[in-house]
Amino acid sequence: MNFDNIEEDIIKWRRILHENPEPSFKEYKTTEFIKEKLLSFGNIEIIQPAETRVIGKLKGSSQGKTVAFRADIDALPLDEKTECDFRSKNNGIMHACGHDMHTAILLGLARILSENKQRIKGEVLFIFQRGEEMAPGGAAELKKSGVLDGMDMVFSLHVMPGEKTGRIGVKRGTATANKDTFDIYVKGKGGHSSMPQQVKDPILIGSEIVTNLQSVVARNVDPFNTAVISTASFKSGEEYGVIPDTAHLTGAVRTFDGKTRETVKNRMKLIVENILKAYEAGGEIKFFENDYKAVYNDEELCDIAEKVIMKKFGKDALVIKERPESFSEDFSEYINPAKGCMVWLGVDKNGKENPKLHNPYFCSK
Amino acid sequence: MNFDNIEEDIIKWRRILHENPEPSFKEYKTTEFIKEKLLSFGNIEIIQPAETRVIGKLKGSSQGKTVAFRADIDALPLDEKTECDFRSKNNGIMHACGHDMHTAILLGLARILSENKQRIKGEVLFIFQRGEEMAPGGAAELKKSGVLDGMDMVFSLHVMPGEKTGRIGVKRGTATANKDTFDIYVKGKGGHSSMPQQVKDPILIGSEIVTNLQSVVARNVDPFNTAVISTASFKSGEEYGVIPDTAHLTGAVRTFDGKTRETVKNRMKLIVENILKAYEAGGEIKFFENDYKAVYNDEELCDIAEKVIMKKFGKDALVIKERPESFSEDFSEYINPAKGCMVWLGVDKNGKENPKLHNPYFCSK
Amino acid sequence: MNFDNIEEDIIKWRRILHENPEPSFKEYKTTEFIKEKLLSFGNIEIIQPAETRVIGKLKGSSQGKTVAFRADIDALPLDEKTECDFRSKNNGIMHACGHDMHTAILLGLARILSENKQRIKGEVLFIFQRGEEMAPGGAAELKKSGVLDGMDMVFSLHVMPGEKTGRIGVKRGTATANKDTFDIYVKGKGGHSSMPQQVKDPILIGSEIVTNLQSVVARNVDPFNTAVISTASFKSGEEYGVIPDTAHLTGAVRTFDGKTRETVKNRMKLIVENILKAYEAGGEIKFFENDYKAVYNDEELCDIAEKVIMKKFGKDALVIKERPESFSEDFSEYINPAKGCMVWLGVDKNGKENPKLHNPYFCSK
Amino acid sequence: MNFDNIEEDIIKWRRILHENPEPSFKEYKTTEFIKEKLLSFGNIEIIQPAETRVIGKLKGSSQGKTVAFRADIDALPLDEKTECDFRSKNNGIMHACGHDMHTAILLGLARILSENKQRIKGEVLFIFQRGEEMAPGGAAELKKSGVLDGMDMVFSLHVMPGEKTGRIGVKRGTATANKDTFDIYVKGKGGHSSMPQQVKDPILIGSEIVTNLQSVVARNVDPFNTAVISTASFKSGEEYGVIPDTAHLTGAVRTFDGKTRETVKNRMKLIVENILKAYEAGGEIKFFENDYKAVYNDEELCDIAEKVIMKKFGKDALVIKERPESFSEDFSEYINPAKGCMVWLGVDKNGKENPKLHNPYFCSK
Repeated sequence: MNFDNIEEDIIKWRRILHENPEPSFKEYKTTEFIKEKLLSFGNIEIIQPAETRVIGKLKGSSQGKTVAFRADIDALPLDEKTECDFRSKNNGIMHACGHDMHTAILLGLARILSENKQRIKGEVLFIFQRGEEMAPGGAAELKKSGVLDGMDMVFSLHVMPGEKTGRIGVKRGTATANKDTFDIYVKGKGGHSSMPQQVKDPILIGSEIVTNLQSVVARNVDPFNTAVISTASFKSGEEYGVIPDTAHLTGAVRTFDGKTRETVKNRMKLIVENILKAYEAGGEIKFFENDYKAVYNDEELCDIAEKVIMKKFGKDALVIKERPESFSEDFSEYINPAKGCMVWLGVDKNGKENPKLHNPYFCSK
Repeated sequence: MNFDNIEEDIIKWRRILHENPEPSFKEYKTTEFIKEKLLSFGNIEIIQPAETRVIGKLKGSSQGKTVAFRADIDALPLDEKTECDFRSKNNGIMHACGHDMHTAILLGLARILSENKQRIKGEVLFIFQRGEEMAPGGAAELKKSGVLDGMDMVFSLHVMPGEKTGRIGVKRGTATANKDTFDIYVKGKGGHSSMPQQVKDPILIGSEIVTNLQSVVARNVDPFNTAVISTASFKSGEEYGVIPDTAHLTGAVRTFDGKTRETVKNRMKLIVENILKAYEAGGEIKFFENDYKAVYNDEELCDIAEKVIMKKFGKDALVIKERPESFSEDFSEYINPAKGCMVWLGVDKNGKENPKLHNPYFCSK
Repeated sequence: MNFDNIEEDIIKWRRILHENPEPSFKEYKTTEFIKEKLLSFGNIEIIQPAETRVIGKLKGSSQGKTVAFRADIDALPLDEKTECDFRSKNNGIMHACGHDMHTAILLGLARILSENKQRIKGEVLFIFQRGEEMAPGGAAELKKSGVLDGMDMVFSLHVMPGEKTGRIGVKRGTATANKDTFDIYVKGKGGHSSMPQQVKDPILIGSEIVTNLQSVVARNVDPFNTAVISTASFKSGEEYGVIPDTAHLTGAVRTFDGKTRETVKNRMKLIVENILKAYEAGGEIKFFENDYKAVYNDEELCDIAEKVIMKKFGKDALVIKERPESFSEDFSEYINPAKGCMVWLGVDKNGKENPKLHNPYFCSK
Repeated sequence: MNFDNIEEDIIKWRRILHENPEPSFKEYKTTEFIKEKLLSFGNIEIIQPAETRVIGKLKGSSQGKTVAFRADIDALPLDEKTECDFRSKNNGIMHACGHDMHTAILLGLARILSENKQRIKGEVLFIFQRGEEMAPGGAAELKKSGVLDGMDMVFSLHVMPGEKTGRIGVKRGTATANKDTFDIYVKGKGGHSSMPQQVKDPILIGSEIVTNLQSVVARNVDPFNTAVISTASFKSGEEYGVIPDTAHLTGAVRTFDGKTRETVKNRMKLIVENILKAYEAGGEIKFFENDYKAVYNDEELCDIAEKVIMKKFGKDALVIKERPESFSEDFSEYINPAKGCMVWLGVDKNGKENPKLHNPYFCSK
């Protein structure tokens, strides 16, 4: 294959994208840029179901499978704090999750494959997806739209601070978390602090919910599986002498397989609902509807990924990952019936660990 | 009135009774003794609805109210440990709750009133009740039998260690506790201690019940009322490595008015039932059906009692009690629609506090 | 005695005071008004340890005890919502706790006694105290200043919605609550909600504190005494995915005797401190230093109060109160070594219950 | 090598052992049997540090490493319930944990290697260890005795119901659990159930310990590690009306690496100790001193094991195990500084799952 200038191209494109970040679902210029590049390759068909998303389709020279590659294109609502020479020109918006790199790399892949169309059997889809950072995300709508029907397998990559540049991580099976964000509302009955008998004390009830929830991870989850339930806020009352009417708690659950996820959510519901009943209070637990499910990497696709990495970059480039990441990604939406595989791209340089994803100092060079 | 030899009679009778104690509902000889004495007074009519209970009826010289006096006549399943010369002849049975004294004193009263029949308006009932120590008790059955219909007021006394002989205590309003004994059964699901996910952990569930129950007294009872919930046993499991199927907890509740009693029992039920549901376990809380309710002393009868005590024994003999006793008594069964009043008879002597009620060293002279 | 026009005077003075409320420790005009009146009576000596407090001293015709009467003179930071014709002229300040009435009544008493100086043995002090509504209050500073040394007994009254005008309540012994306001600070360690092992979860710790505190009232307080512990706020965290560093809880304790107060505070300290240690967190419970203690009414002074009420206003005017009030009052500061007695003055009219104390609709006519 | 009759020998020896089980530390006849067999092979040196343990040493033809193989030889205190023709002749003792098979197989290995002495470099040790079923176990004493000094690597196997006969499982790294058995003693203060204020309620305290312990697994353990804390018994009290003095709880902890083990035990100690202090009670948590640590399988030895299995029995015979077993084994005592590897031997037959280890129906043919 002809890889002439491919690195230069990708770096150049990435820096343009980094300088011009756009927020989730408003990736107008980004989409234009991608479209322009795809068209410039000469043989890629454009599918654009909306102004801010674009799919390139490359037909091979003969019949075969449909293989997709996906990049997410949106940026984050952050003020960039790096001092690099291609820092964000858009105040309050920054590519701090590496989507600029994902996009530029996918464009590079499209160029290469476009130049080698005759060697391709089947079709290749280059999916440039909007709104990954904002649930319900851009993947679900694409899947629903039908434009991906017939896709057999889908690959993606995500930059990964903490791993050296030049190394690529593969995690078989579950690769990211199911995230389930929740609100717990306690509707008690307030009153004067000297007359507890007239009150349904929302602080006590909320506290009993928090303490009883500990049992879910401790007792209801298979010890060899993983689940985390964290309450991240508890708000109730303003005073010293007046018991409030309500309490509001929030938090997030992380699990890594569907069965554990269901078990945990069901147990949480049962605990919250019945503690509320035990104290004759109203209220409920509400899980967000659009949280992302775990990405499940297909064994066979992982085999392919590992072989390619070892063949192209050598044995040392491959990192066999034992643990999934605890964040969540809407790449999971593309999987099933298609097979999927997301790999992790090291981005640490010069022996220093990059700032974490979503950090305003996240890697810029 | 003629009080000749009355003290001697009462002491003599009491010692005979003390020597010949009989267990609850088996007071055969005791009943015969009482009946014989009542008949010996010459003008008392015997009502004997069963072999082990007897009521004496004395008709006055003119029409008037029906006033009852009640003694309980059964003894306790205890080995007497005193060394007095009229100690129990019946192994394992002892008058350690003072019913021998109650009975002898009521016989004395019957003798006096019998001798003064002409001064009485209305009727007097001398109720010798069996089985006070064994719920559901002898009072409820007497009330139900109808022989007490028409009774206008009923008096009783109870000996009271901790108060000097010669003093009599009056507590207006609530005088004893509502006692509610309970069992809590937790039906979980046992299993190996390494696989909590297959288990419904009865020890955790029982523990959550105990901790959640604390809120009832702390938050649901009017702070100026009184309630005590005590769990007195928790039994679950035998091993280090096997989680058991069930837990069994027992305890007792004490309250002093009907509303608080209902509140406490309802709150307990709601907490137990809903904690069980929160943990998907079976089980229940069961309150004993026949526990005794609180004795409520009528204001007007207390006025009478106080006046009589002060007139006959002087101002110092009267103890105005501020707190009810925490034990329970089936004298409460006689009250409503009749008015009732139970007073406390001091029995400490020589500056020493008597052993407590139900103690095998309880006062003997 | 000469009671000419006394009712008119008191009503007139009270309305002037009600129209011109001043906040705690800023009672400048109020003090001037009081002083002017006291001086106008001709034989009352003025003691004025500060601009905003004044004590009138009336010497009797012969030697005797020193008897004090106390009124509190400050108003509350409330917008008056009544529509009466002498409503507050000062925006945001209102006599909603009846101190206008207390002050006017005490001026009336001063006028009467001043006119009957020859019938008085000993001395009478008319204490007009500032800042009752704002702990540490005006009573403690007066006591500390020494101007009250030698005072033998002190009386006060407080208006009482819920009781008819014309009736006066006397509560023997404890008449108001010990109030102990508290802050609980939990210093945990925050972090990402997916990594609980790096966190000292302040929401869990705060919740365990709340649930464990239930045991204090349920298990450590004599069931025949009274204590209330209410947590009135719980604040921790802002997000769904970030566990916060700290939690802040507030609340108030009410008890009615010194021993129970110490027991409750000690138990709370032990629970908070040791739960914090159990979770390796920092923090503490802090009780306010200047909360008011319970008012303890002297038996002998209550006898006097009851006799006077019955003699002057008849048997129906006297309300024997069984329960103390749950609020707290710095009148307790004057008691010990002096004897004290605070009585409750009914203020309901026309069969309607007055709005509660501290309510912006509180009684105005 | 000469494998003549080796299967017959092993089966024969195993049945003899199965018929004649002996309890832990009392394996007299078993040891004699083993010794006799080892001696019969002609070139194995006997090391017998005590009557009930025996090590065979086989010197190879040249210098080399010291490789040990270990079998445990004791049986369990169970009545055998199988009906096989070589069932236990010793009432109440049964080889229900497969040690008969472990021993017979190791004897077989000794025979084979003894016959092939000239092909061996270095030395081989055949360790027949007593008392594996009874902590502190027979391994620790052997290690301490010094007879194993210089051992370079040690292999063992354990039968495994749930896996087919003919298959062998290898688990890299941690292969069994750290087990930590514990007692929790709560020393409160008992009393009458109507007087909680005189009591330090051990049932409440024990319950708070149980509920607070839930947080350890839920919050203090890395979610990708594994820990289980199970309370398996809670015993306190006998009555309905008497609060007991003490509570006794037992249970077991399972972890799979040393750091998690320390974290969990430390957190448990801190929670128990500080909850006790919070309630002014005495008591403690005591972990058994001699519980077994996790077996850690060396990577290099696992490579060897896997290669041998695949070479000798084919690819399908090898089971790559992802999870460690949750039981514990004192094979861990031999590891460090020697390297170790324990593999799992399938024993299911005819498509049926064998009864579990320690079950009186455990596999007999």
